[in-house]
Amino acid sequence: MDDSFYMKQALAEASKAAERGEVPVGAVVVCKERIIARAHNLTETLTDVTAHAEMQAITAAAATLGGKYLNECTLYVTVEPCVMCAGAIAWAQMGRLVFGAEDEKRGYQRYAPQALHPKTVVVKGVLADDCAALMKDFFVTKRR
Amino acid sequence: MDDSFYMKQALAEASKAAERGEVPVGAVVVCKERIIARAHNLTETLTDVTAHAEMQAITAAAATLGGKYLNECTLYVTVEPCVMCAGAIAWAQMGRLVFGAEDEKRGYQRYAPQALHPKTVVVKGVLADDCAALMKDFFVTKRR
Repeated sequence: MDDSFYMKQALAEASKAAERGEVPVGAVVVCKERIIARAHNLTETLTDVTAHAEMQAITAAAATLGGKYLNECTLYVTVEPCVMCAGAIAWAQMGRLVFGAEDEKRGYQRYAPQALHPKTVVVKGVLADDCAALMKDFFVTKRR
Repeated sequence: MDDSFYMKQALAEASKAAERGEVPVGAVVVCKERIIARAHNLTETLTDVTAHAEMQAITAAAATLGGKYLNECTLYVTVEPCVMCAGAIAWAQMGRLVFGAEDEKRGYQRYAPQALHPKTVVVKGVLADDCAALMKDFFVTKRR
């Protein structure tokens, strides 16, 4: 199992978000090669700005493990996390963060480049084109 | 009703957190002079790094109003929000943010000074000594 395999699972989650009319971002948390949490953006469905895919995935993964810290886990997310999610990833002391498409407007790299925990390993650009295409298609359809 | 009045309500929430052995941070959301959400830090109780007072207060306030955006609301919180919470406050387009004590180590002002929505009015230092004292007492007791 490589990063592409798990990113495809995150993409499947993102597709579920799109089907619900949500901005299509998906995430999975992997611990010891096992997916322990899957989530997609639900901000519209739940009327809750905090219901980003990453936030839900972190909460679910901690519940599965019975511990707050995810230092032995990898978070896969289709789009670069925002400042809020980067802050949560830092508090969770996430072992690795793997994301697909960059988000120049809302991504943490622009507003809070030092937000992550210093020990978190970051891998960017995994299946970036697929992740970005989902977002682009969603917003094109929205504008029609 | 002035800012001190509502901050005292947030302080009451922070005290509840301390009684549970949680880092004592409390928050309330006020809309048209009515408190529509109250919350305190529950990260240990819920084993969830995302369960900061502000996050829960934002989720609860949006549920009460039936809308994601809190541009007509004020969030009162005893301690300067972290990066995660500042990001959530931005997504909620909070009308006003009033906080008590500064948090030099984890506060958003250090790591993400541009994280808030540009229209959010920020008021700092309301009952700051009381807010800081609760935190100090908590950590002194912890170290014993």
